[in-house]
Amino acid sequence: MKQLNIGIIGAGRIGKLHAQSICYNVPTAKVLGITDVYKDHLPALCEELGIEKIYDSYVEMLEDKDIDAVLVCSSTDTHADIAIAAAKAGKHVFCEKPVDLTPEKVQAVIDTVKETGVKLQVGFNRRFDHNFATIRKMINDGKVGDVEVIKITSRDPEPPSAEYAAVSGGMFVDMTIHDFDMARFMAGSPITEVYANATCLVDPAIGEAGDVDTAVISLKFENGAIGVIDNCRRAAYGYDQRVEVFGSKGAACASNDTPSNVVLMDENGCTGEKPLYFFLERYMQSFRDEMLQFVDAVINDKEVPANVDDGLAAIVVALAAKKSVAEGRPVKVSEIY
Amino acid sequence: MKQLNIGIIGAGRIGKLHAQSICYNVPTAKVLGITDVYKDHLPALCEELGIEKIYDSYVEMLEDKDIDAVLVCSSTDTHADIAIAAAKAGKHVFCEKPVDLTPEKVQAVIDTVKETGVKLQVGFNRRFDHNFATIRKMINDGKVGDVEVIKITSRDPEPPSAEYAAVSGGMFVDMTIHDFDMARFMAGSPITEVYANATCLVDPAIGEAGDVDTAVISLKFENGAIGVIDNCRRAAYGYDQRVEVFGSKGAACASNDTPSNVVLMDENGCTGEKPLYFFLERYMQSFRDEMLQFVDAVINDKEVPANVDDGLAAIVVALAAKKSVAEGRPVKVSEIY
Amino acid sequence: MKQLNIGIIGAGRIGKLHAQSICYNVPTAKVLGITDVYKDHLPALCEELGIEKIYDSYVEMLEDKDIDAVLVCSSTDTHADIAIAAAKAGKHVFCEKPVDLTPEKVQAVIDTVKETGVKLQVGFNRRFDHNFATIRKMINDGKVGDVEVIKITSRDPEPPSAEYAAVSGGMFVDMTIHDFDMARFMAGSPITEVYANATCLVDPAIGEAGDVDTAVISLKFENGAIGVIDNCRRAAYGYDQRVEVFGSKGAACASNDTPSNVVLMDENGCTGEKPLYFFLERYMQSFRDEMLQFVDAVINDKEVPANVDDGLAAIVVALAAKKSVAEGRPVKVSEIY
Amino acid sequence: MKQLNIGIIGAGRIGKLHAQSICYNVPTAKVLGITDVYKDHLPALCEELGIEKIYDSYVEMLEDKDIDAVLVCSSTDTHADIAIAAAKAGKHVFCEKPVDLTPEKVQAVIDTVKETGVKLQVGFNRRFDHNFATIRKMINDGKVGDVEVIKITSRDPEPPSAEYAAVSGGMFVDMTIHDFDMARFMAGSPITEVYANATCLVDPAIGEAGDVDTAVISLKFENGAIGVIDNCRRAAYGYDQRVEVFGSKGAACASNDTPSNVVLMDENGCTGEKPLYFFLERYMQSFRDEMLQFVDAVINDKEVPANVDDGLAAIVVALAAKKSVAEGRPVKVSEIY
Repeated sequence: MKQLNIGIIGAGRIGKLHAQSICYNVPTAKVLGITDVYKDHLPALCEELGIEKIYDSYVEMLEDKDIDAVLVCSSTDTHADIAIAAAKAGKHVFCEKPVDLTPEKVQAVIDTVKETGVKLQVGFNRRFDHNFATIRKMINDGKVGDVEVIKITSRDPEPPSAEYAAVSGGMFVDMTIHDFDMARFMAGSPITEVYANATCLVDPAIGEAGDVDTAVISLKFENGAIGVIDNCRRAAYGYDQRVEVFGSKGAACASNDTPSNVVLMDENGCTGEKPLYFFLERYMQSFRDEMLQFVDAVINDKEVPANVDDGLAAIVVALAAKKSVAEGRPVKVSEIY
Repeated sequence: MKQLNIGIIGAGRIGKLHAQSICYNVPTAKVLGITDVYKDHLPALCEELGIEKIYDSYVEMLEDKDIDAVLVCSSTDTHADIAIAAAKAGKHVFCEKPVDLTPEKVQAVIDTVKETGVKLQVGFNRRFDHNFATIRKMINDGKVGDVEVIKITSRDPEPPSAEYAAVSGGMFVDMTIHDFDMARFMAGSPITEVYANATCLVDPAIGEAGDVDTAVISLKFENGAIGVIDNCRRAAYGYDQRVEVFGSKGAACASNDTPSNVVLMDENGCTGEKPLYFFLERYMQSFRDEMLQFVDAVINDKEVPANVDDGLAAIVVALAAKKSVAEGRPVKVSEIY
Repeated sequence: MKQLNIGIIGAGRIGKLHAQSICYNVPTAKVLGITDVYKDHLPALCEELGIEKIYDSYVEMLEDKDIDAVLVCSSTDTHADIAIAAAKAGKHVFCEKPVDLTPEKVQAVIDTVKETGVKLQVGFNRRFDHNFATIRKMINDGKVGDVEVIKITSRDPEPPSAEYAAVSGGMFVDMTIHDFDMARFMAGSPITEVYANATCLVDPAIGEAGDVDTAVISLKFENGAIGVIDNCRRAAYGYDQRVEVFGSKGAACASNDTPSNVVLMDENGCTGEKPLYFFLERYMQSFRDEMLQFVDAVINDKEVPANVDDGLAAIVVALAAKKSVAEGRPVKVSEIY
Repeated sequence: MKQLNIGIIGAGRIGKLHAQSICYNVPTAKVLGITDVYKDHLPALCEELGIEKIYDSYVEMLEDKDIDAVLVCSSTDTHADIAIAAAKAGKHVFCEKPVDLTPEKVQAVIDTVKETGVKLQVGFNRRFDHNFATIRKMINDGKVGDVEVIKITSRDPEPPSAEYAAVSGGMFVDMTIHDFDMARFMAGSPITEVYANATCLVDPAIGEAGDVDTAVISLKFENGAIGVIDNCRRAAYGYDQRVEVFGSKGAACASNDTPSNVVLMDENGCTGEKPLYFFLERYMQSFRDEMLQFVDAVINDKEVPANVDDGLAAIVVALAAKKSVAEGRPVKVSEIY
């Protein structure tokens, strides 16, 4: 197999991003075709990127023998069904997170992947980020010693609409899920218990919709380490994405990336730039690198670097966090699934 | 009153520090006399610093009409009794933290202070630290907006002996008490609930002595803000003292102080110095400034900047944290006292 | 014109870089063909990047009517002749620096460009670097005030071979030429006088070959500003590329870019990464952006952002620096050309 | 000798500073008496600091057998004569910089010191600064390798009045003299040649008074290293004091000290504080430490850490810099003295 032929299901923000990323930066793959429930914008995208085919539906795409792998970038509620159909059609699958909001459906995906033997990678792109991957490598190289405390700060520049907050499944499932995966990735161990101290301080409408927008989430890991994630749906200075891993030999700390490193010293002080605006700007390199590794895993039959078990683990922890807020107590992950 | 005449009760590490600090840096006060249960080292200290009197006991000191104020730097279990005796003798009191390990005894000090009308300041020196005081000023100036999340990292360079850990009342009472006060100071609001996720990862002997050495402590404040303190009794790189206050307009972050700001760029990377070693090095300026403000409060009849109510609040939260670990659940501060 | 058809002359390190950059990142251009004096490696490159044509020589390329513009990436001594031939053939030209080592030949290029009306951009890629472009924008926005002092630090990770040092025309022409252009770019004013304090401290063989490897170069600008460039052919910590512009309202400072921003705090101190290794790693984004702007200038008939007058100015200053070292005195640029 | 009895000659800003510094921070010394041409403010100062004697003149002070050492803090034009008189009276001398504006008079001080055998230390306080002393130690410890390039940035927050600029001997003698000493200190080698690229950009009145306010000064050292100092009499962001020493193994860089390390992240960016305002704030610790070492050198008969030869070297280089500007050429230091 020279170039992997990829079909993209869902051409929204993230689907388009992957399409561009593959066309410009992944020489080992080719976007053969695309589909979306809304089709008006597809011809322009296909012309820009040289994509040959527009399918009526993902079903049609899965019938195309030339397609080797699909990217599931559709709405969250369709992820699991499409992933299962794709696997049954013998296509390798890259599935955006979360795989599903219910552990049972994610389990069904796990089972299908096992039966069919296809590769399935979940879109935990942050594992591939240059800063976080560097920390993980330092841990692997023994520079941090035994991991004892994991700290993650994750704040969005602006809150979503209350409507979105409501349908997204809530902050833990929609936003913190990345941080839960990052915590597991850094700890090298499953999360066993969660206590979420969460509230609504940014937008009352979010609270009225039954969700929270600010949280401090305390974690226990199976290997004895502990951790904390702090989230906010709004930071006046932009997208705040920091990780600190503390261990017996030291601590590795990743700060924010900025558009430039220029500092202006003037009568106001010494001022550097705000962080890169949001995930598209901040994580561009990681979106490319996760795709390079997915394509490499398929072509060379390697393990995918973030599999559907990781997807299951993250959603289960997210649901434990929700239960923790509802009941005002620490919740064991095993209570959920 | 030209210079405040001060008597120091207890000439251990912290008592000596205050004696030197007053002699060299507080022109408005004079250390008139000193006492300690161990007296061998007192003459040398008095000669070095020009201290005139060595008292047999604090009782004798309190009878000396020339003494305006006393510093209670004796062992923790004697703080409250001495403070009460001093107040009844009409002496102003500077009392090291914790005032006592039981809320009831701290309450007795509060009552005595109220009756006698003396000033009593508690040794929460970190409020006076240049970094943390700058953050507090930024909050006051409205630069952070509404305070939403308070984050404190506090790690010691080396663990205490297990024996000390046992008799000190435990990490929360001995070490975290400073952080609880800092959290209240930054929030400008009482702590109402605590969940402590704590464990023993540094020294098993500490665990056997019934204490913890590593913790992530989740906080709720009366004003709706939330917070987190993370502690460890040992950091390979030294004394880690950071504070971050996040609000609706931005975040103010204090990092560690270092002996110099020199960075060496060589084949190993770009390396700056480790933090200042421990509290004596790190907080020297704050020990001086808390004393300047205490003396100023007495001489000019002002409010002390950290009073015995603050001392009570901190110990109550520390006890709530202990109960939280023991019972594996969030504990309301009102359950304690 | 939909896509600009580009021919690349010279497929060495920098030619290949531009080819990849255009294929992957410049949607408005297409590499139609390529040529090099060595042809063995061309088929593989063409297959990788989808380049259709391999020309026998640049002469053949210039005869191809489908070619709209050429990139001159051949050896320095051929730049001027090829640029002139290309311009006469009606092709737009992107010419790597230096345009030529003699001002007279660069003048001939200037004259031909004027006569033929083609666009010619010189490869001063650093103008497009995110850090330096940010400083330039701050100056334009008035944040620095009147520019008074320009400081540039430019150090390579490793010295070239003495042979290369000899044939390259020397450090000022080969390496500092970028810094001379940066100084002019930041000052917004020509350099009028140069005093080069230069020596050979890294490799005696470089000195024996008649060149220097370490220098502090003092500059005067026509607008009254002053400046300094410091160079070294070897830095133990890698490629050091910093710029500081000081003015009446403040100073804008760009530091080095690193592979990640992770800091490891351990018993050795707080260690960040070394700078990105060398120009390919450090300036990748600028190579892409200079090409985007060249293509945009051609397609939309705009001014090129670095023209052949800039190329002339830089080489003249470099020659003045050489003369300054030879004669041990400040040299007016007007003495050279 | 238990405590060194010190007399202070000149109770202006720097004399007062040393008086306070000794009283509060140098337990091994005592300020026995003080004198000044203006005497009105002396009683208050003496009362504040517990200084016993006010002398009519430095002559009277030198006759006092109880005085062991004097601090010469009078106006520059009197330094040399007083230092000579003090040495002849058998008093050890701490002399503020510059010792004199003429090399001949400094030589006369050198000769007298040699004859009388007293200690004489020159007030090059910056050698004792925590940042710069750390760099010097790194060089001594071999961490920088062979020193190749020394870079010093030294900018004042505000320009002096044109009158002061005129009588002070000019910027090089008044301000840069500290940097010339720092350059020698870091290089561990004499400066042999100076080229000063200097101009007047801050205040035209300074230019009319015959002085400069902005400069880039290129240096050659006897050991083959090269260097550069950049000065400005005004920086919008305050007192800018940075040093970088580059060598075969790496570079050690000192940045500015700030009142706190707090960074405010908000919609304007990530803003840290301006540098400490001016030399009194910035160099307080170094003023104390130079005094501690002077007292130690006298009491324990050690070498002083900055002697009158260092004072001579700095003034000679400053005069070479003036000549360089006047004649527009590099000037060998040996041309001056």
